[in-house]
Amino acid sequence: MVPPPAQRLQRTFPPATRRSCRCAGASGTYCFAMRKESRFIWWIRWIVIVTALLLLGFTLGWFAKPTHPKAANESPSSKYLKDFLEGMQPDQIRQHLRKFTRLPHLAGTEQNLRYAEQIRKEWLEFGLDAVEMVPYDVLLSYPNKSQPNYISIVDRFGIEVFNTSLAEPVPEGYEDVADIVPPYSAFSAKGQPEGDLVYVNYGRTEDFFQLEEMNITVTGRIVIVRYGQIFRGNKVKNAMSAGAKGIIMFSDPADYSAAGVQPYPDGWNLPGGGAQRGNVLRLDGAGDPLTPGYPAKEYTYRLSLENAVGLPNIPVHPIGYHDAIHLLKNMGGQIPPNNWKGTLDVSYRIGPGFKDDFKSQKVRMNIHTNSQVTRIYNVIGRIRGAVEPDRYVILGGHRDAWVFGGIDPMSGAAVVHETVRGFGLLRSKGWRPRRTLIFASWDAEEFGLQGSTEWAEDNAKVLQERAVAYVNADSAIEGMYTLRVDCTPSLHTLVYNLTKQIASPEEGEEGISLYDSWHKRDNWTADRDAPRISKLGSGSDFEAYFIRLGIAAARARYTKDRKTEWYSSYPVYHSVYETFEVVDRFYDPTFKRLRAVAQVRGGLVFQLADSQLLPLDVNQYADSLGKYAQSIAREAQKHPEEMEMYGVSFDSLFSAVRNFSVAAGDFHERLQSLNRADPLQVRAVNDQLMYLERAFIDPLGLPGRPFYRHVIFAPSRHNKYVGQSFPGINDELFDIKNSADPKKAWDEVKRQISVAAFTVHAAAMTLTPPA
Amino acid sequence: MVPPPAQRLQRTFPPATRRSCRCAGASGTYCFAMRKESRFIWWIRWIVIVTALLLLGFTLGWFAKPTHPKAANESPSSKYLKDFLEGMQPDQIRQHLRKFTRLPHLAGTEQNLRYAEQIRKEWLEFGLDAVEMVPYDVLLSYPNKSQPNYISIVDRFGIEVFNTSLAEPVPEGYEDVADIVPPYSAFSAKGQPEGDLVYVNYGRTEDFFQLEEMNITVTGRIVIVRYGQIFRGNKVKNAMSAGAKGIIMFSDPADYSAAGVQPYPDGWNLPGGGAQRGNVLRLDGAGDPLTPGYPAKEYTYRLSLENAVGLPNIPVHPIGYHDAIHLLKNMGGQIPPNNWKGTLDVSYRIGPGFKDDFKSQKVRMNIHTNSQVTRIYNVIGRIRGAVEPDRYVILGGHRDAWVFGGIDPMSGAAVVHETVRGFGLLRSKGWRPRRTLIFASWDAEEFGLQGSTEWAEDNAKVLQERAVAYVNADSAIEGMYTLRVDCTPSLHTLVYNLTKQIASPEEGEEGISLYDSWHKRDNWTADRDAPRISKLGSGSDFEAYFIRLGIAAARARYTKDRKTEWYSSYPVYHSVYETFEVVDRFYDPTFKRLRAVAQVRGGLVFQLADSQLLPLDVNQYADSLGKYAQSIAREAQKHPEEMEMYGVSFDSLFSAVRNFSVAAGDFHERLQSLNRADPLQVRAVNDQLMYLERAFIDPLGLPGRPFYRHVIFAPSRHNKYVGQSFPGINDELFDIKNSADPKKAWDEVKRQISVAAFTVHAAAMTLTPPA
Repeated sequence: MVPPPAQRLQRTFPPATRRSCRCAGASGTYCFAMRKESRFIWWIRWIVIVTALLLLGFTLGWFAKPTHPKAANESPSSKYLKDFLEGMQPDQIRQHLRKFTRLPHLAGTEQNLRYAEQIRKEWLEFGLDAVEMVPYDVLLSYPNKSQPNYISIVDRFGIEVFNTSLAEPVPEGYEDVADIVPPYSAFSAKGQPEGDLVYVNYGRTEDFFQLEEMNITVTGRIVIVRYGQIFRGNKVKNAMSAGAKGIIMFSDPADYSAAGVQPYPDGWNLPGGGAQRGNVLRLDGAGDPLTPGYPAKEYTYRLSLENAVGLPNIPVHPIGYHDAIHLLKNMGGQIPPNNWKGTLDVSYRIGPGFKDDFKSQKVRMNIHTNSQVTRIYNVIGRIRGAVEPDRYVILGGHRDAWVFGGIDPMSGAAVVHETVRGFGLLRSKGWRPRRTLIFASWDAEEFGLQGSTEWAEDNAKVLQERAVAYVNADSAIEGMYTLRVDCTPSLHTLVYNLTKQIASPEEGEEGISLYDSWHKRDNWTADRDAPRISKLGSGSDFEAYFIRLGIAAARARYTKDRKTEWYSSYPVYHSVYETFEVVDRFYDPTFKRLRAVAQVRGGLVFQLADSQLLPLDVNQYADSLGKYAQSIAREAQKHPEEMEMYGVSFDSLFSAVRNFSVAAGDFHERLQSLNRADPLQVRAVNDQLMYLERAFIDPLGLPGRPFYRHVIFAPSRHNKYVGQSFPGINDELFDIKNSADPKKAWDEVKRQISVAAFTVHAAAMTLTPPA
Repeated sequence: MVPPPAQRLQRTFPPATRRSCRCAGASGTYCFAMRKESRFIWWIRWIVIVTALLLLGFTLGWFAKPTHPKAANESPSSKYLKDFLEGMQPDQIRQHLRKFTRLPHLAGTEQNLRYAEQIRKEWLEFGLDAVEMVPYDVLLSYPNKSQPNYISIVDRFGIEVFNTSLAEPVPEGYEDVADIVPPYSAFSAKGQPEGDLVYVNYGRTEDFFQLEEMNITVTGRIVIVRYGQIFRGNKVKNAMSAGAKGIIMFSDPADYSAAGVQPYPDGWNLPGGGAQRGNVLRLDGAGDPLTPGYPAKEYTYRLSLENAVGLPNIPVHPIGYHDAIHLLKNMGGQIPPNNWKGTLDVSYRIGPGFKDDFKSQKVRMNIHTNSQVTRIYNVIGRIRGAVEPDRYVILGGHRDAWVFGGIDPMSGAAVVHETVRGFGLLRSKGWRPRRTLIFASWDAEEFGLQGSTEWAEDNAKVLQERAVAYVNADSAIEGMYTLRVDCTPSLHTLVYNLTKQIASPEEGEEGISLYDSWHKRDNWTADRDAPRISKLGSGSDFEAYFIRLGIAAARARYTKDRKTEWYSSYPVYHSVYETFEVVDRFYDPTFKRLRAVAQVRGGLVFQLADSQLLPLDVNQYADSLGKYAQSIAREAQKHPEEMEMYGVSFDSLFSAVRNFSVAAGDFHERLQSLNRADPLQVRAVNDQLMYLERAFIDPLGLPGRPFYRHVIFAPSRHNKYVGQSFPGINDELFDIKNSADPKKAWDEVKRQISVAAFTVHAAAMTLTPPA
């Protein structure tokens, strides 16, 4: 041990000095000898001291230097998170929403490009490092301006005795606005089919089965279905499969009105003249229908329209309930089951055709909608990561709207705008995230998630290698009750932890966290004592990132009370009545709910981008996999004889899940002893966390759906809004009762169990020590 | 500035000492004051000195400490490389080869498992960290032991008047060896077809076209083709497509004898009784025919035999030329083109059937080969990486042999064994590679690359994320002339640099490098003034790694003189005459050629595993892409009218290649200013280098070949041994002349150009700065 320098100095030097002084008055030679000896000792001592001091300094220097120069950067993240969450302002969100909802901005229109340019400009002003416009040329679909779409009742001479309205009554304050696209079904086939109507309730698989049981065929007829319950594209597909030559969709008040609420503008219910626009594609993740698998660039090969992906080959048209009454009121045929009845003052008879005096009347659809390749624009902004610029955290939401987009999507886009402003504020304080942040304003979501999917296709390679997570930002509000989160299991823990740091936006809940407010309102009792989190389905831009590429994903919004509010979506959904005012007056007058959503979405990307260790919970994934496996096995066990007969067993899947749980537990344990000062060790572990979601991707895709490649999660084949676990097995089991060849069907179940078991094993392998 | 410590010491202390001495005999008070003052100054000085020394030490400590603790590990790599290369011994390789060629060890047999266990044991003794046996249950194919396969000539009564031999004459010294499998075509269909023979030369696409032009049909007939030029599976496929009901393959001396060389055992030519075994599958990368896309584990779902991938549905059988003479000598029909004639003393008439008196004779095939699911074993060994254990460099080669495997594969396996021994020696000196090294002894390569493909499928996720490169180790020698290397363009530079550090093994070339020897013997004049390097095709275990997963790959072996030695492969290929002696006596008596191959293969994996910066050259990839694009465009321009008519242009591909070249150039330039002391910067750049090859993978695969996914390289559809660049375009162009629907065919060319252009753009994007 080296004694402290001060001590050593006193011990050594003063005596040496004194000793040589004494010499001067005494025996010279002796003294000289003494002097020589003491000089020698003096030098020795000197060398020892100098060496000791240098060594001490060296040691201090060595240990004072950080092992990794950037480690110092990492600690104040949580302080910045607090600043960031507090920096987001309701007023600002209100202003953003106001600004971007004045004019219709349908994908492919001039106005939507203008908003894109404005967003680009403002994001740069907020302080992003770079913002670019990224165009693609994709297939969109618009009504023909000179030949409007409508539906007629024609008499036996072919004379149109009733026509549906050509547009919705324009809401107050917007009378002078041009370019409001009338309600239509994007990508409808053209045509003027004429025939008897058949009412098929929601147009679900089970509704068509019911019809079959009632011995009513729709072949060569026009079906009329009510909106709701499932994605409209699935209704159209079902109608086509059943042989219908046209399909009309209407919004029944039973599905689009809340009790005790007035129609817009006096309340937030859908007026009778309002109708729901929407695309009727069955893309299954393909993006642009002409360039499946590849980005729609100038040089890209395009399929012919006949070979385009997912386009229906029958005319489709949406109407409001005022018009629907006219089509329904004189229908004849059988009386429907009770659960087929909406709340209009009609009998909901199934048809086919009209009754009594109206028997000779037919329905004629007049559809002239055109598909055309059109330029769209994504806006992509970035903040470069300070430590790991090659790791990406993405916050993306669409900008294109059917009309004003008051809720869908601008409530979400305003939230993204505020999030970007928030990150800009942090940047101005000198902060820079550990990883790169990417912000996206997608185009043409309403036409089949095209902007986001084309960009994912364009950037597939780098995203596959570098994307940590994708947070989606569609409509931020669809109700006034509580938070709603859908995300991958590994993000549950982060969502819970984050919402505990955010205040409840509800009046009377001051001092209560968003977590507690949410927990109280929507306890996930069936799973655990915590707020409910759902599986991701589809219907918004996370699809390509999560289900095709296997990037951990989440979405969050404010929602209605699922226990009492049974209407589909929100009443004015995709109508002209989705204005700024519907949010400002009814959904969120203080804009605190939107701020809370901004804090959740922004907080998620903040923590994913800035935490040294990625906040992804592998144990939670293991837990969820266990539950999904149990659940799918229970589903199959409804057919015990067949399982016995065809030798179907879930043992391999259960065994794989157990293996995964052990690997996840061990991984989690090793995390505790990770040397966080070693940048390569941290990077390696983060890579394992990042790539875990990727491990669930099967490059061969799900059966018949090459772009749905996630073996654990995919939209249901029967309703793309619903997220299914183990979709490969699930889809087969759904169809098994009606299968013409049960042996083959159960064989496919076996194959899917084998694929699922393999995939879970492979994912477990990614969590074991790499060598 | 702080003066050096020695100077300061002299300047300060001796005077201070002297001064205080003088005091002793002079004025006490003054001296006392002086003393007080000097004490003060003394203390000041002391503090300055101590501080200075500490500071100096601190500074030294600070700068002495490496920025990254492991950086210190990295410099002596080249010294270890030298040790490693010198450590590999010809004698040792000879011993390894001797040891593993004593007994037949066909895939799926007891003996091949024994060798696997022995390899596992010895690799552990050599010093690997871990070695495991990895089993799969795959579809193999064996002759029926109780019903031998043979071919007969039958007379009009159906009596067999000639039968081909049931086995090859066993070479001297091996008379008592059991379990030599007779020559057969693995995965042949069973059956006893009978009919007229048609001779179709090599059975290539062009040979069948020629036959068509001559108005000779093979439908319902048995074709006889000579081995050589293309992969036998392609011959079988062509025969099936043409409607043949059986196919016989023989080895013509024209293709399996070197001039002036005696048949084995007096030389290395194929004796007349020898025949070439081999599988006749068309797997296109699927691995086990029953589990395409997934590893053949116990729980894996298996296709039925009827749905198995790539099995021919006609009987196939190989014979030697002694037997072939009997089948050919009496053939009638047209005289063949001159280039259809081999060197047997027969007319090579095409048939169908026999001539003159023999007209009533038919040929009957008697094939009873069985397919069965069989357990196979890979041996997988590892040396854990010291710095980046989660980066893998793989050296793999197969162990299973048709009989003894003297050349194929044990010359390669002996080289791998010696390489492992070499790495073990380094380990014993305390060395550990920067990245993890994986060594593989694959099983069932001869049955369609099954062991390597199943392992690739099993580990696809981790390989995709972590594998830096794959070096293949099949037969290490097929000639006595010079080196032969096939590899991805980014490895060219490493191969050249490495071979400059290896000595030529040729007698009389002492002091000359392998590079110079190779350069002199096989100058790649058409491309550059350097030794020729070829594209990877298929036919060995790198396939799944390179063409399915996109891992940079290379193979190297010693070869014949391509300018003068025109025989296919090497004469005794896949016969019982592939013994230890054929190598020991003829191919490499000093075992220096095998050592050189060991040094190349081992040196490649050493440098890939141990260099701080990955030795992958992106500029070389750019250069090669440019040449491939030129070449494919030239090919298309043979059809100028069609290109005009259908609007086919290569502009987008050329533009993509230019874009890639710029990105590669910029990347290379940024490498020069990389801060190599920052481990995350180095990691990020290495990730870009590693993932470049991955960027060429299209998850949708090539048309009709889902497991061939590399857009730049794939085996030709017409001969899997040949590596094609831009295979998607190439394949289409090959067929275009014979297409029934030229518009559709040229449309597919356009689509393939678009896919190629996109892929090259996407690859360029991976090389740009990540944010």
